[in-house]
Amino acid sequence: MELDAVSIEQKDQQDQLAHLRQHFSLPEGVIYLDGNSLGALPSNVSAVLQNAVEEQWGQSLIKGWNCHNWIDLPSRVGNRIAKLVGADEGTLICADSTSLNVFKVLATAIKLRPDRKVILSDTGNFPTDLYMAQGLKELVSDEIELRLVAPEDVEDALDETVAVMMITEVDYRTGRKHDMKALTQKAHSVGALALWDLCHSAGAFPVHLKEAKADFAVGCSYKYLNGGPGAPAFVYVAPKHQGSSGNPLTGWMGHNAPFAFDLGYAPSVKTDQMRVGTPQVLAMTALNAALDVFDHTTLEALQAKSIELSELFISEIQRRCPGLELASPTDPLKRGSQVSFSHEHGYPIMQALIDRGVIGDFRAPNIIRFGFAPLYLSFADVLKAAEIIEEVIAGNLWDKPQYHQKSKVT
Amino acid sequence: MELDAVSIEQKDQQDQLAHLRQHFSLPEGVIYLDGNSLGALPSNVSAVLQNAVEEQWGQSLIKGWNCHNWIDLPSRVGNRIAKLVGADEGTLICADSTSLNVFKVLATAIKLRPDRKVILSDTGNFPTDLYMAQGLKELVSDEIELRLVAPEDVEDALDETVAVMMITEVDYRTGRKHDMKALTQKAHSVGALALWDLCHSAGAFPVHLKEAKADFAVGCSYKYLNGGPGAPAFVYVAPKHQGSSGNPLTGWMGHNAPFAFDLGYAPSVKTDQMRVGTPQVLAMTALNAALDVFDHTTLEALQAKSIELSELFISEIQRRCPGLELASPTDPLKRGSQVSFSHEHGYPIMQALIDRGVIGDFRAPNIIRFGFAPLYLSFADVLKAAEIIEEVIAGNLWDKPQYHQKSKVT
Repeated sequence: MELDAVSIEQKDQQDQLAHLRQHFSLPEGVIYLDGNSLGALPSNVSAVLQNAVEEQWGQSLIKGWNCHNWIDLPSRVGNRIAKLVGADEGTLICADSTSLNVFKVLATAIKLRPDRKVILSDTGNFPTDLYMAQGLKELVSDEIELRLVAPEDVEDALDETVAVMMITEVDYRTGRKHDMKALTQKAHSVGALALWDLCHSAGAFPVHLKEAKADFAVGCSYKYLNGGPGAPAFVYVAPKHQGSSGNPLTGWMGHNAPFAFDLGYAPSVKTDQMRVGTPQVLAMTALNAALDVFDHTTLEALQAKSIELSELFISEIQRRCPGLELASPTDPLKRGSQVSFSHEHGYPIMQALIDRGVIGDFRAPNIIRFGFAPLYLSFADVLKAAEIIEEVIAGNLWDKPQYHQKSKVT
Repeated sequence: MELDAVSIEQKDQQDQLAHLRQHFSLPEGVIYLDGNSLGALPSNVSAVLQNAVEEQWGQSLIKGWNCHNWIDLPSRVGNRIAKLVGADEGTLICADSTSLNVFKVLATAIKLRPDRKVILSDTGNFPTDLYMAQGLKELVSDEIELRLVAPEDVEDALDETVAVMMITEVDYRTGRKHDMKALTQKAHSVGALALWDLCHSAGAFPVHLKEAKADFAVGCSYKYLNGGPGAPAFVYVAPKHQGSSGNPLTGWMGHNAPFAFDLGYAPSVKTDQMRVGTPQVLAMTALNAALDVFDHTTLEALQAKSIELSELFISEIQRRCPGLELASPTDPLKRGSQVSFSHEHGYPIMQALIDRGVIGDFRAPNIIRFGFAPLYLSFADVLKAAEIIEEVIAGNLWDKPQYHQKSKVT
């Protein structure tokens, strides 16, 4: 699929989603291929946030909890995210961070399977999920075992010792995508529960939590959902588990009557049980505005464009840069909305690219990642990025001291 | 201390802190006596937040983590709060919610006292602290006991069974203030650790965590620190406990090398160990701006004014409204920066007051609270509030159906 500039222009003209780009504020001279790490700024966020600060907080003050319904932001925003991940209204809330939500649902899962002690995950999972499981084990019982297998061995490793399978659908390094439906079915067939981390899924392609019969899910909102740096995360609890109380982080907002100020905790019987402290009003308001763009398209359309963009990218890079090894699956349905390559000098190569306006990122030890956010990327962006990558690699432009200096955040 | 309007005007003219009011945006026609629940909007926040959104996020995108040093916001903001609560640099970070921070340090304290099982607290503590202790007990071991005593009995209840004393310095209902130094000393004398919740202290009056030898502290930033609705909280760890690893919420940001993406958790040896997920960049940036006003005064000066305001308020209310019973200590050094009264019709009375621009709040079953934020309140505000309260009570203006309708948030 080698395309010249003219054909690319035609593709952009025919792109039914091209109009969505106008919903974003992007800097000049930048091709942003890191929306899988931090989504770009939706143009409406700034004014909405300014209103939340100056009018809601500034003018309504404490009354804002009622008159602007701040108190229900976790469920209001949660219900909008629910639609994007195939979940029913009332089953998903916005709260805290992904890590904290992992802890809440892992502890709940362990409690639901008291005779089992194994948390099964894979070595491609994002480390914080594994760390939270380790923290839970350390706190609760040495009998709990975090069993890690290679991503391709998860299905075979599901047996009747497993209490909960904790899997991130899309591998943060390679983009490799697990089969949610098949793995959940297998987990259930051995009596295990299924917890899905959707950090690299939500907003990128269709997710069907209900249809896949997932028990729990978590995810962040600052990647493909464009909620902003450090935006609050989300947590899903399948209807059949709503009645069980299992979240050990029993804060007042998870109480069934928070404003009764009882001394004893009694959990909400709704997903609100996964709430802990006072909701992050400003951050959730920003996220709520960011979600508006999804009212103008479908996840199916976004996925279709993402596949076109990434297939174009792969073919151009493979043709132009034989020294880069594809680290992502070649079947676009078996990867998320990112494409990764490995190169022993991945770190300085990425710094040189960023210096030239092609922003992706690096993941140790040798992965350079490029995310394709179909909401705001054009085919011309992809072609231009491929040209710049070729220049940098063919010309060894990355081999300069300043590109080797490690930043605090990579 | 009965004062007429002329004397009050003189007091405001002589008030050395009167100029601080210009740092806040307050609505016309409102006397805001609820800064103890949600602080008013500092005037600089909106522009700072707009810049963080449009320039930092919008233009720098993922590079913001390094170029705007987002990654260090928890410690940068934490160090500024540390100064306000008598803590050394590096011992306090901004993170998550108060409830979550309670869980982190309670679990750490329990681990530091493995032979003891009692968490001692009092019935005046804010319920979420108690709930988090209950959640920890439920998760970890039935042997853990949350022992609740009356606030005045805490000192006597400290014995060698107590692992950790968990106390909120200022009672959210009555404003009654515990003696941090004396109770911490008593706790240490029996080998217990001391955890202080500073939600109603930080930013209101001088706190001396280091001098009092507190082991841990937590608090929110949306009350007297004016960080905005749902602003992130803080957590303090005394230097002598920095080496111990105890936070069970082991997220990647608490790892000693988060960007190595190791599969195994290894805690930071710094207060950063109390970090969990990705920091809330926008909310912390807002809070950071809100803290600027504290560069223009001292906590000692703020406390002195708070005492003058609250003493004036009490004397005026007691003179004008004999049906309101003072629920706060009469000694201003034995209460925080709030004054509470009890009345069987507290709820509709407060609704009638809010309707007339005097904003305080109600706490079940019968408490009406008035907070005195000396950063933005004048003596004239206090006198005017007392006049309106008198009108409402003397005229039974609260006895209307609309004032009895309960809101979702009280």
